Amino acid sequence: MSFTDKLSAAWQSQTSLLCVGLDPDLSRLPAELQSQPDAILAFCRAIVDATADLACAFKPQIAYFAALRAEDQLEELCKYIRSRYPQVPLVLDAKRGDIGATAEQYAREAFERYGADAVTVNPYMGSDSIAPYLEWKDRGAIVLCRTSNPGGSDLQFLKVDGVPLYQHVARLVAEKWNTNGQCGLVVGATFPEELAQVRAIVADMPLLVPGIGAQGGDIAATVAAGSDSVGAGMMINSSRAILYAQAQAGEDFAAAARRVALETRDAINTHRKP
Amino acid sequence: MSFTDKLSAAWQSQTSLLCVGLDPDLSRLPAELQSQPDAILAFCRAIVDATADLACAFKPQIAYFAALRAEDQLEELCKYIRSRYPQVPLVLDAKRGDIGATAEQYAREAFERYGADAVTVNPYMGSDSIAPYLEWKDRGAIVLCRTSNPGGSDLQFLKVDGVPLYQHVARLVAEKWNTNGQCGLVVGATFPEELAQVRAIVADMPLLVPGIGAQGGDIAATVAAGSDSVGAGMMINSSRAILYAQAQAGEDFAAAARRVALETRDAINTHRKP
Repeated sequence: MSFTDKLSAAWQSQTSLLCVGLDPDLSRLPAELQSQPDAILAFCRAIVDATADLACAFKPQIAYFAALRAEDQLEELCKYIRSRYPQVPLVLDAKRGDIGATAEQYAREAFERYGADAVTVNPYMGSDSIAPYLEWKDRGAIVLCRTSNPGGSDLQFLKVDGVPLYQHVARLVAEKWNTNGQCGLVVGATFPEELAQVRAIVADMPLLVPGIGAQGGDIAATVAAGSDSVGAGMMINSSRAILYAQAQAGEDFAAAARRVALETRDAINTHRKP
Repeated sequence: MSFTDKLSAAWQSQTSLLCVGLDPDLSRLPAELQSQPDAILAFCRAIVDATADLACAFKPQIAYFAALRAEDQLEELCKYIRSRYPQVPLVLDAKRGDIGATAEQYAREAFERYGADAVTVNPYMGSDSIAPYLEWKDRGAIVLCRTSNPGGSDLQFLKVDGVPLYQHVARLVAEKWNTNGQCGLVVGATFPEELAQVRAIVADMPLLVPGIGAQGGDIAATVAAGSDSVGAGMMINSSRAILYAQAQAGEDFAAAARRVALETRDAINTHRKP
């Protein structure tokens, strides 16, 4: 099954556009976990178990594992997600970008080693830096387009023939790179009108949309701007707001994460067109 | 000592602008090494020993290690280079690019875990994706500008106000991001006239220049175009042409690598202005 088919099935079966981002910051983990040798694995596994029926995708961020020399824990986590929740696509957030021979190695890292269904990639080095990922026909490459961070405008908003660079990237991916339906785009929720412009360019291509939750993006505006022709089309990501949810009386961290994930999924669904 | 000071000292003490890229492809290693459990470490260590007096920098490419689950070998290699050849700057080629909180983790990966003097980074996500690396005051961030691969033109050559995007990146880094003299740029050797234009924009900022050797860039044109005001200013990288040099009679792989590295260093020096 292709990545996009798996994702479409998850949108339906999970009734969710929520992507749960797994960015395990050791300093923010519950005290009882911090002393464990595999703390970030235990933490992420608990979050996964608490949210799996609410998520259309899981998105581990590799940097948090790499900084701690914990690639082995990321491998275990990915294996756990794939075996326990095979219906939920696994997106490795790595934002790789390099020449073809090197991209082949990064593709092996993402798809063979971690078994990801899709990986985020950076478009700056152009088509041959993306092509090796697309050789893995059942996997996806989700290309950075318009990012939700403050500096995102530095390059992405530069005007090329009167049109911002990110729209050129959207067009390039839609018209040239996405020959086999394997591509998606990263478009931040912090700019709903730009999300709408990207959606108009790329038809029903899947979008990974960070920026709600801790980054402040508006859910109603995001759903209105980014939905595809059947009212799906997005993995709307929340990481920190779910992972580090403030526990209420009687909740542990996982229950708090579940509560926020449920609220977020439902808030998204409220605004979806039937 | 800052990265740029260490690099300037290496240009002098080594009489070299040659950067030796360490991209250990398991399938291309000598047969006698392939069966070893730490084959790529053993291979890279032999290359390092054979070329250390000829190099102004070593540049391991992390993708080759990550694809093989060999981060431990990369750690050992970096430790070996730092302890045995402390005069030769260590540049981790990782081309990272992500939002600030994530970039902090990547900076820890590069600088704390691997002890790199500098890391390559991608500019697409803008200033706050670069800032965390610059918090490490004695380290460098080498920003992708004009890359040597075929698809490099897809984005980098788009015209913004009549000027190609890569020149905007050069100007952005020179004028805004390089506040503490910690930045460098990646500019491919395959486009000497563009290298000259970048040099004109960034004054004496260090340039990492891939694309000679296996990628076909011309050494004379590269030196003429990219030298700084004192006839240095570049880490001219060669990876595959050195690592996989064809052995001549009586040579092992390391001797062949040394011969090609020596020829390359000397060819570069021939064209340098005194």
